[in-house]
Amino acid sequence: MALLGSGVVGSEVARLLVEQAADLTARVGAPLEIVGIAVRRPLADRPAHIDTALLTTDAAGLIRKADIVVEVIGGIEPARSLLLEAMDHGAGVVTANKALLAEHGPELFARAADRDVDLYFEPAVAGAIPLIRPLRESLAGDRVMRVLGIVNGTTNFVLDLMDRTGADFDDAVAQAQQLGYAEADPSADVEGHDAAAKAAILASIAFHTRVPGASVHREGMTGITAADVTAAREMDSVIKLLAVGERVVADGRDVGVIVRVHPALIPRSHPLAGVHGAYNAVYVEAAAAGQLMFYGPGAGGTPTASAVLGDVVAIARHLVGGGRGTGESAYAELPVLPMAQVRTRYHVRLDVIDRPGVLARIAEAFASHGVSIETVRQRPVGGAPQQRADLVVVTHTATDSSLAATMTDLAGLDVVGEVMSVLRVEGA
Amino acid sequence: MALLGSGVVGSEVARLLVEQAADLTARVGAPLEIVGIAVRRPLADRPAHIDTALLTTDAAGLIRKADIVVEVIGGIEPARSLLLEAMDHGAGVVTANKALLAEHGPELFARAADRDVDLYFEPAVAGAIPLIRPLRESLAGDRVMRVLGIVNGTTNFVLDLMDRTGADFDDAVAQAQQLGYAEADPSADVEGHDAAAKAAILASIAFHTRVPGASVHREGMTGITAADVTAAREMDSVIKLLAVGERVVADGRDVGVIVRVHPALIPRSHPLAGVHGAYNAVYVEAAAAGQLMFYGPGAGGTPTASAVLGDVVAIARHLVGGGRGTGESAYAELPVLPMAQVRTRYHVRLDVIDRPGVLARIAEAFASHGVSIETVRQRPVGGAPQQRADLVVVTHTATDSSLAATMTDLAGLDVVGEVMSVLRVEGA
Repeated sequence: MALLGSGVVGSEVARLLVEQAADLTARVGAPLEIVGIAVRRPLADRPAHIDTALLTTDAAGLIRKADIVVEVIGGIEPARSLLLEAMDHGAGVVTANKALLAEHGPELFARAADRDVDLYFEPAVAGAIPLIRPLRESLAGDRVMRVLGIVNGTTNFVLDLMDRTGADFDDAVAQAQQLGYAEADPSADVEGHDAAAKAAILASIAFHTRVPGASVHREGMTGITAADVTAAREMDSVIKLLAVGERVVADGRDVGVIVRVHPALIPRSHPLAGVHGAYNAVYVEAAAAGQLMFYGPGAGGTPTASAVLGDVVAIARHLVGGGRGTGESAYAELPVLPMAQVRTRYHVRLDVIDRPGVLARIAEAFASHGVSIETVRQRPVGGAPQQRADLVVVTHTATDSSLAATMTDLAGLDVVGEVMSVLRVEGA
Repeated sequence: MALLGSGVVGSEVARLLVEQAADLTARVGAPLEIVGIAVRRPLADRPAHIDTALLTTDAAGLIRKADIVVEVIGGIEPARSLLLEAMDHGAGVVTANKALLAEHGPELFARAADRDVDLYFEPAVAGAIPLIRPLRESLAGDRVMRVLGIVNGTTNFVLDLMDRTGADFDDAVAQAQQLGYAEADPSADVEGHDAAAKAAILASIAFHTRVPGASVHREGMTGITAADVTAAREMDSVIKLLAVGERVVADGRDVGVIVRVHPALIPRSHPLAGVHGAYNAVYVEAAAAGQLMFYGPGAGGTPTASAVLGDVVAIARHLVGGGRGTGESAYAELPVLPMAQVRTRYHVRLDVIDRPGVLARIAEAFASHGVSIETVRQRPVGGAPQQRADLVVVTHTATDSSLAATMTDLAGLDVVGEVMSVLRVEGA
């Protein structure tokens, strides 16, 4: 096999291949040998277990020598071209590259099918957590209705810290940076880009439908305040950045899928609420299997290397014993529907003037758009020149478009000082 | 395909095959057709979706006509003979039969290898939760150190009810029976037989070693009292019936595995503590992947049917596209070590006479067997003719044999009225 890239993940793949050589040989039925490691800077400092004789800058030359190619470079190019070329040469490939799959998945899968080679990508979503294989294979006889995932460890670390300590967003991000859980520029995480790529991959598999990364509705979590976290706690809930993919059914027929990433409230009793720190988990609702959850470390060199090696062993077993893994399954071709059609519940926090009749006017705004209210909680907060109140409204299920129209109306009411937050409520 | 058995699981398999025919055809690349359903009583009442024309009492004749055979009869015979015969005829087989696998797994796996056919069994452990495939395939490049599972829904329901309501064991079992979570004779569940069979299967796969069902150390949970549950709560812990399989390493070398089923305390902060009701979950500790958890419904006709169909689709894909699934992997051949060699922590509750010097004598008993004490909590409970106390000792890691020797000594001390409970502590 050839390894493209020798960073955090690649060097751990190389280490595990050496340390577990005997076990891997027994499990595959033949030895797994690294024929080379493609790197950009062959003279850079590397861990001692990396055999420098294997290093090369000629990635294109290397892949011609390998029957299995592992891509852990990241980015779109040259990763895309190298993977296509590797498949053209008949190699089975493993990639940890979620951005590439979210953007160019169909091209890669088509090439794998065309060349009759394996294309595996367990490490691309949620690190070491087995997700792709369970969704593609274990649930192949079921009907997945929804996937609900915490698929970004950085944002979960930040939100968990805010929940546990009352820290505000900026302080929590700074702590995450100090501890190495967040990058110096955390925007790929906190703006939800990373989660959106993973959501696209998960939804594609779960619904047998191509979901381009660009079709994922994405809202970041930079607007989440300590007050939002407190308000959530008062409802016995936590705020998580969720990746949600769901099948939309009307009159018993599948009409599409909606895939979205945004912060949301979930009840503390929900299994996803117990996912702390930088851990990831994906909750799957399937028609027959019911409610499943897959939990584990979502990132890190060693966990991700474990997922890479699981895929390498699968390809190697096929090389030894024949057969191929499951290819792309996109037969359902469900349309990706716009966010406006999502039906969920909402938690709305308003700053209002505290005087008789105010609640009636606010309730009327919800009612006029067909949004039914489940609970209202009002708390006076004082203020001048008028007495003010903090009003929290939780709705029953409504569409995003009705809720948005309601919010527009509310913002125009003279009794509403400010719409302080609107958060979706999931997992109820 | 042929279906052997049409009970709770079998009839759901038949229903899903009909209802999801179009999806299954698209996913497999060919239609999945039931050629017959072997039953004992063809005239019994059955759900409307069962085509009575398919029913037959001639199971042996039926399997000759099928390329996939699903066994959901249960019990050892005729399930064993029918599966062997089906493989002899070249059929791939799926079984949900944990007792059969725990007792005759090696014979069945050898036959599958010999005939070069698939033998799948995801439904045999923890219902719909994908476990077998993740352990055999996703973690094939990793080194599993330990599996820690709640694999019996009945006992989890009972223990969860005791924790939530303070009910005692008998009342909780009676409630579980009323709600259909426990059988009229609950002994297969509460004595740990069901969990032990699953533990044997999980450990066999996780450690690439044959673990016979009979080699699993098994303790039931009939001795757990409301007082034990209260004592656990005071330690911010819960009691769960756990199936534990672990690799034993000495001087950096694998020396064996220990597989055990018994009630144990786990901290409320542990992900397994959040597994409520009849849900199951298996926590896996792997050298590279880290801590993973797989959660979902552990039983029930529809969830188990989902797991059956996932396996059926896998076999059907092999029939269409070539190849075989992962066969038995038992190359490691680690010895199964006796329970006395387990190293874990212990929670010991004693009724003692409350007078100066008692604690010193008790601590001395622990120390004399090399068992180090982590915490002691003593609470006077009154009593006559002498003042008594409830003494809880939590130990550091010690071997089961040292702890047992300590308990023998303690029971002989005149200051100890009674050893009220000894529970292992896991997941710390």
